[in-house]
Amino acid sequence: MTPVPETARPQIGYAVLGSGALGGYYGIMLAHTGCEVHFVARSDYAQIHQEGFHLQTRDQHIHLHPVNVVSQIAQLPAVDVLLIATKTTGNAGLLQLIRQTPGEPLIVVLQNGFGIEQELEQHLGKGRVLGGCCFLCSNKIGPGRIHHLDFGRITLGWSSPDSASYAKNPRIAEQIAADFQRAGIDMQIIPDMLEARWRKLMWNIPYNGLSVVLNASTYEIMNQPASEALVFALMEQVRSAAIASGKAIEAEFTLKLMEQTKSMVPYDSSMRLDYLNHRPMELEAIYARPLAAAEAIGAPMPSVRMLYQQLQFLQSRYLGAGDMNSPKP
Amino acid sequence: MTPVPETARPQIGYAVLGSGALGGYYGIMLAHTGCEVHFVARSDYAQIHQEGFHLQTRDQHIHLHPVNVVSQIAQLPAVDVLLIATKTTGNAGLLQLIRQTPGEPLIVVLQNGFGIEQELEQHLGKGRVLGGCCFLCSNKIGPGRIHHLDFGRITLGWSSPDSASYAKNPRIAEQIAADFQRAGIDMQIIPDMLEARWRKLMWNIPYNGLSVVLNASTYEIMNQPASEALVFALMEQVRSAAIASGKAIEAEFTLKLMEQTKSMVPYDSSMRLDYLNHRPMELEAIYARPLAAAEAIGAPMPSVRMLYQQLQFLQSRYLGAGDMNSPKP
Repeated sequence: MTPVPETARPQIGYAVLGSGALGGYYGIMLAHTGCEVHFVARSDYAQIHQEGFHLQTRDQHIHLHPVNVVSQIAQLPAVDVLLIATKTTGNAGLLQLIRQTPGEPLIVVLQNGFGIEQELEQHLGKGRVLGGCCFLCSNKIGPGRIHHLDFGRITLGWSSPDSASYAKNPRIAEQIAADFQRAGIDMQIIPDMLEARWRKLMWNIPYNGLSVVLNASTYEIMNQPASEALVFALMEQVRSAAIASGKAIEAEFTLKLMEQTKSMVPYDSSMRLDYLNHRPMELEAIYARPLAAAEAIGAPMPSVRMLYQQLQFLQSRYLGAGDMNSPKP
Repeated sequence: MTPVPETARPQIGYAVLGSGALGGYYGIMLAHTGCEVHFVARSDYAQIHQEGFHLQTRDQHIHLHPVNVVSQIAQLPAVDVLLIATKTTGNAGLLQLIRQTPGEPLIVVLQNGFGIEQELEQHLGKGRVLGGCCFLCSNKIGPGRIHHLDFGRITLGWSSPDSASYAKNPRIAEQIAADFQRAGIDMQIIPDMLEARWRKLMWNIPYNGLSVVLNASTYEIMNQPASEALVFALMEQVRSAAIASGKAIEAEFTLKLMEQTKSMVPYDSSMRLDYLNHRPMELEAIYARPLAAAEAIGAPMPSVRMLYQQLQFLQSRYLGAGDMNSPKP
């Protein structure tokens, strides 16, 4: 069989739902290396339409202009892949948005949290949903303005182990990964998405929550023995729950995450930025869902629950006691 | 046997070490009803000597002037009873101060925390030390100025069950209680001081710590379901440790404490005031000692430890990582 030459390979068309720190960064990087990328932007639509995107990384400034941007998901052209890069706090309306998308794109969930791609798969069908765990330090510093600080690696996987065989294009995950790699993003395909989610939670649960409750950067948290010990205890509690659910995460992984975080630039977690700006925090995705999953398998995480309770209190001060998936305007 | 007439009863002479929210309140109340009371004041000495004490309660203003006040404990006259009303954060020097006191007064530890009267008894001998658990909402609002908000009840007991039989005056606890009662303070004598300390910790551990970490009053904490549930969990963890140490504290006590706190006036715990004023917090007495005691009997309190770790982090931000019993000037 003759390999398909590079130029003849069918191009994947992408759309990105969300134009913030995460969707902006990955979408700009893909577009910058020649991929077809459409953005769905809400509050920043006019700015992005007129001025384009500005991305500042550690070693380059990218000005993407003009940008294929729409303000309503129904205005998208038919694309192959829809990257979900919104906050989970808006997920109550996510399925409806996906159903308004022209065509039947493959969904790639780049959100934080737990169980979201599995839930979407139940509604959309097998072979329709991939998950991506993003290890990214990036902040939105203004409409259409993204500041990338560090990292960017994505682990990509099907919602469930046998999903690929149901896909219209069973090789699409590999094609997406090739596009990201060409754009300078380290994207690796993994066989077990739930395990990747547990590994990601081992970082998100301690650092997102403690950065809010202690009003501290990751650097400060890791630079004090008591808080460092608390990070370790929280990570180990998450790891125990993961192990109880059949994901054999090795003890060294905890130490590796802690060392990596120590060597990171001081970073305001996205949850801390949400808190400081009185936006809803991703408590449902990062705390409530994993807690429910862990308790369902008889592996409760009491310290994680305590952190969640503290975060609920702090959020109720500015949002009231409303539904966390329905942020107030 | 003829009862001793009221006028012939030998008067107890009191000294109060510490002239803040607690020592000021009780000392003023005793002096106001005619007891002999001497105060040892450090930073506020000059003010109290010149202007006296001002105590504002809910229904009266007491101006005590002149006040028997000294700036050094060695300048006290010989007294019968020395009330210890300093913060535990200065306890590294407490034994030395007691040894400088003229005579051999009975020591009454009115501090927060755990195991302090037992430790003093080991050094001073049996029959020399009583403990008092104070349920008091009182703030120092300036030098010599005390604002009493609510409560004031004290449970008084010997350091160990057989201590009374070693005392110079085995009836002195009853005489002290009578003096306090005359001064309007509900003081009850109890047979088991350690149990009373555990009961007090069931309040102090959740409310002191959470009021700092969540930057909230007791009212706010009890007015949000997640933080209220966290208070319950912390209290129950302390109660379990108490039960493991042989103190049969009933389940209803947790609910009673929570109901009482709900009906309290919104109150800034002393720990929160210390935190807001960048003073050392009583972490050793309220967290480290009970945690060590609980772990020693195989009843660890993981959520209490997490709260302690969070408080250590927050305190290290303004005090550095130094010895918590040796506050920086």
